[in-house]
Amino acid sequence: MTEFDLIRRYFTRATPGALLGVGDDAALLRASAGSVLAVSSDMLVSGTHFFPDAEPFLLGHKTLAVNLSDMAAMGAQPRWATLAIALPSVNNAGADDAWLEKFSAGFFSLAQRYGVELVGGDTTRGPLNLCVTIMGEVPQGGALLRSGAQAGDEIWVSGYLGDAALALAHLQGRIALSESDLDICAQALHRPQPRVELGLALRGIASSAIDISDGLLADLGHILEASRMGAQIDLVKLPASRPVAGYLGQQTGIQCVLAGGDDYELCFTAHPARHAEVSGIAAKLKLPLTNIGTIVARQGCIVFDAAGNPLKLERAGYEHFR
Amino acid sequence: MTEFDLIRRYFTRATPGALLGVGDDAALLRASAGSVLAVSSDMLVSGTHFFPDAEPFLLGHKTLAVNLSDMAAMGAQPRWATLAIALPSVNNAGADDAWLEKFSAGFFSLAQRYGVELVGGDTTRGPLNLCVTIMGEVPQGGALLRSGAQAGDEIWVSGYLGDAALALAHLQGRIALSESDLDICAQALHRPQPRVELGLALRGIASSAIDISDGLLADLGHILEASRMGAQIDLVKLPASRPVAGYLGQQTGIQCVLAGGDDYELCFTAHPARHAEVSGIAAKLKLPLTNIGTIVARQGCIVFDAAGNPLKLERAGYEHFR
Repeated sequence: MTEFDLIRRYFTRATPGALLGVGDDAALLRASAGSVLAVSSDMLVSGTHFFPDAEPFLLGHKTLAVNLSDMAAMGAQPRWATLAIALPSVNNAGADDAWLEKFSAGFFSLAQRYGVELVGGDTTRGPLNLCVTIMGEVPQGGALLRSGAQAGDEIWVSGYLGDAALALAHLQGRIALSESDLDICAQALHRPQPRVELGLALRGIASSAIDISDGLLADLGHILEASRMGAQIDLVKLPASRPVAGYLGQQTGIQCVLAGGDDYELCFTAHPARHAEVSGIAAKLKLPLTNIGTIVARQGCIVFDAAGNPLKLERAGYEHFR
Repeated sequence: MTEFDLIRRYFTRATPGALLGVGDDAALLRASAGSVLAVSSDMLVSGTHFFPDAEPFLLGHKTLAVNLSDMAAMGAQPRWATLAIALPSVNNAGADDAWLEKFSAGFFSLAQRYGVELVGGDTTRGPLNLCVTIMGEVPQGGALLRSGAQAGDEIWVSGYLGDAALALAHLQGRIALSESDLDICAQALHRPQPRVELGLALRGIASSAIDISDGLLADLGHILEASRMGAQIDLVKLPASRPVAGYLGQQTGIQCVLAGGDDYELCFTAHPARHAEVSGIAAKLKLPLTNIGTIVARQGCIVFDAAGNPLKLERAGYEHFR
């Protein structure tokens, strides 16, 4: 199979929202009037971000999901993506076919759900590597930035924290989850749901937002740094699934909710006057939104335990270059 | 060094042409009024596209150059780029620093020349992989497409063909070049010059265009396929540097000019009435532009040798998945 056959067979779908899609030296795109373009790139590497034997449909989903999550965190409407992919050399071309068919099915299944069009990319030989650039639209001046948090703002997170990290701890043999608990947590790890609808709903309401890819403390830390603010959060308020809650008496559980990456929930801040509106969004989207603490002027992030004592924090989050 | 330190130190420069650059979940960009966005992604993999010990400054140059070449082929004004990079784990962090400093210097040196702003990306651990998404602007309806070639159009190429392939043949031990010949050819291989100015000058003049990354026959073939046309080209007209010309009596030289990739010259077509204008562009840019043949209605590409006999073609170009 040539590179061009491969692109034609697995990665070419109709792109009615583009002036020109796959097949020339570049795609041609036009943002809607009054909108600006939000652009983000994420690279997923075998062995670093996923196991080499990852199920390809789920990997295709996750490859796009982590990028959609960046659009969600900006309050952007995702529109287009490019996908560059390095595939290992295999002797049996059939294996490639099966893998690509499932991978592209997972990718396009999620793309279709959010109206994202694949408009270009690259395919080449090399250790498995997946690089997506996602492009979305946001009304000029309407993006959710990291830098807008104000003292007194409430801090919110969507969904549950730590499921993905707990699943990883199980897969790495550090803990042993029951089958039903693993099922719950593995969903977060393998099939994260980008909070696109939430990001769109938070336009004009949230003062800042970020997606939690490296762990709550690390990612909230980016908001605090960009906003030059501090935060106080309550450990008991952190939303945990039943499996994670079962580990909250141990360091493992606390690590998972505070520093576990890969959940792709949103962390955002909003003025207390918007509390009811945020709760209304939660009800409308059927997505738990939990107020976990408050932005304060004094820099630094303090986590209080159930007794009201500040927690000693050991690990701030996942950083690729530690 | 954390991921964030690394981005701050090596990959954060001022981005006055962006509404928001590096440092949030996405960059925010606005295309100029009347323009549409041209977007292209290219992935460079160690061992596939460059030698693992490639000099990092030149690699930084080439990583951006191959992407700029796509903008050139569209007649687009390059504006912004994202860079996702996977770096192997090294025990000595100092080696990373030296490599990154040179790589980013090469990248930004070329970026600055064309006013391209790095607005985002990703850094992670993994086998060395460099993925750029480039974004440029082109007046609506003014892009140079592959699909516009008409019967009777002249076929042109810029610069010289086959230098990069000849350098590669030497480096792989298949031929032995003199030091001065290697110098000439290695420039094309290691430091390709994207023909951005040419692409811009050809707006409204060329009927189709593509950059030659996989070899003349393969890339001209894309024009022919997209335009549903054929071509007749004359081997003796193909522009060759002195080193390549020295091999034109052998299969090696013919392979280099017809099927050698990595030159990143432009191949374009234009109505014969535009011949003088094209020559004028060549003079103005001090860049050889050579008329190598003609577009014909009958599909297929025929290359005539010096005696006027059609050449038997063995290898159509570089394809990653052969």
